[in-house]
Amino acid sequence: MTERIFNFSAGPAIMPLPVLEEAGAHMLALPGVGMSVMEISHRSKTFDEIIQGAEAGLRKLLGIPEGYAVLFLQGGASLQFAMVPMNFLPLDASADYIVTGSWGKKAVKEAQKFGHVDLAANLADGGFTRVPGQDELHLNPSAAYVHITSNETIEGVEFKSEPEVGEVPLVCDSSSNILSRPILIEKYGLIYAGAQKNMGPSGVTLVIIREDLLPRIREGLAGMLDYRTHVKDKSLHNTPNTWGIYIINLVCKWLKEKGERRQGEFALRRDRRDGLLSRPRRSGFALSHERDVSPAFRRLGKEIRRRSDGRRHGRLERPSLGRRHSRVDL
Amino acid sequence: MTERIFNFSAGPAIMPLPVLEEAGAHMLALPGVGMSVMEISHRSKTFDEIIQGAEAGLRKLLGIPEGYAVLFLQGGASLQFAMVPMNFLPLDASADYIVTGSWGKKAVKEAQKFGHVDLAANLADGGFTRVPGQDELHLNPSAAYVHITSNETIEGVEFKSEPEVGEVPLVCDSSSNILSRPILIEKYGLIYAGAQKNMGPSGVTLVIIREDLLPRIREGLAGMLDYRTHVKDKSLHNTPNTWGIYIINLVCKWLKEKGERRQGEFALRRDRRDGLLSRPRRSGFALSHERDVSPAFRRLGKEIRRRSDGRRHGRLERPSLGRRHSRVDL
Repeated sequence: MTERIFNFSAGPAIMPLPVLEEAGAHMLALPGVGMSVMEISHRSKTFDEIIQGAEAGLRKLLGIPEGYAVLFLQGGASLQFAMVPMNFLPLDASADYIVTGSWGKKAVKEAQKFGHVDLAANLADGGFTRVPGQDELHLNPSAAYVHITSNETIEGVEFKSEPEVGEVPLVCDSSSNILSRPILIEKYGLIYAGAQKNMGPSGVTLVIIREDLLPRIREGLAGMLDYRTHVKDKSLHNTPNTWGIYIINLVCKWLKEKGERRQGEFALRRDRRDGLLSRPRRSGFALSHERDVSPAFRRLGKEIRRRSDGRRHGRLERPSLGRRHSRVDL
Repeated sequence: MTERIFNFSAGPAIMPLPVLEEAGAHMLALPGVGMSVMEISHRSKTFDEIIQGAEAGLRKLLGIPEGYAVLFLQGGASLQFAMVPMNFLPLDASADYIVTGSWGKKAVKEAQKFGHVDLAANLADGGFTRVPGQDELHLNPSAAYVHITSNETIEGVEFKSEPEVGEVPLVCDSSSNILSRPILIEKYGLIYAGAQKNMGPSGVTLVIIREDLLPRIREGLAGMLDYRTHVKDKSLHNTPNTWGIYIINLVCKWLKEKGERRQGEFALRRDRRDGLLSRPRRSGFALSHERDVSPAFRRLGKEIRRRSDGRRHGRLERPSLGRRHSRVDL
């Protein structure tokens, strides 16, 4: 078997070996179908089963209740930075953003193009080293929504629990830590996450949206940028990223088959190197101020920082480090 | 070898076998990299080579000259229906749309949300059976752009040559026939195409844009919806569909290696069943009024229509027909 190397850099990350093996084995023809998953119609019964399987898998793993739609969109979190305010920020209202790092800042920048944004908290002064306490939040009870970034990968700041936002819908960019720990979906109005950290390949954006928010959506949006389009057409308004959704379905199956049903134990990339890393998520490179860090994890972080010559940890983008540190024979 | 079946339904379509074989063989580890292409960072040297290879391949195959940017976006042609007017239709101007079928109608519907649209020609009255002659076009010389759909898959109407639009930029949805025949890129201001018909898997949208048009783009757009963002960041503003771009690169290599350098001979899915189908694109199901149709092609079309009990040809979405008609042993 070829030597496998683990990537902890920006963007996509390690995938479960059994998922890659199954995808490789069925590359030329899905069993009983005779075509690669890349070749089948997104209107076919086979793909219906795949996308429904992916949705059911995520519903199970994340505990997504009735009343929430699960969407497989495109464009990444970066497009969601714009879609959220385009849909939910009326011209005569404002939205509250709690900014705990670089991704949150980007979300604010996009939202400001579409309406009024208030910073309910901005931790930039302290250099983004922590999440704000509840008593530090300047929340507007009539805000259109409150936006947080559940885990800031560049600064390593993660919310351990949701801020209390009353009746205002909580919107969360969970790109880097979705599926890594249990979350109570009911606390959120909308969760979005690029798939490439914990769910599958890049090119799929998961959106979980509370359906009772749909009537609040502004009129006149482009069809593809209006969440209602995708809820109505069950993510099949146009051709979705069929391969990406197929892999997400396999990842969900793998997670379930592995018996890791307890949400707190979900993470795609652990256990490969016992005792060295427990959860090598992107945030693993940075100081993780907001969660417990195992001694081994801390040691690895120090070593990586030492070898990276002081470069910012979130910008360790070349796989060379992975090559040095992550060599394993499979 | 497993029995392979060919899909001619809506959405994604047949891919070259050598591409699938290579992607399958390297699923666990790209040679010299040790990771699946789905696991590598989009900021890595390896992915740089892949995306540059895909761009170079398309530039070669399509004859894309200097002065045009090649972008790999997400959201499909359906998002381009909106992005084109969002970027290029000022509030005090209008755009000309030449409508020759269902996809063009959808493009108009989206554009009308963002500005004034004139129908330079609308062939709906005749049931969308032909493209308009040059003398039937009501072109506005001060239009922001002229939009055409080069091949209407549902109605089977294909432009054999571009309408003459003078100095006004010609914008074209080429989703279903890009790479199938030579086109003179210089005639266009912007070409967009979902990858899933002729270039690779779904989830990648190719955009070819004349760079001197960029200063015309409206200010205030969401970063992800502004073509300038993607030109500036070379399609790496955020994590792109890395897998899809990887496959496009393989398809381009395959096309080049196959020696099919003459643009007129480019098509991904031909020659598998000699004498039966020459170019089984999506449009193959429909009456193809605007191009030569081989007797064999015509026979197959009739047979498919007969068995489909009069259902609309563009909506033959279940692969069962493919199974009946396209069985081959590889």
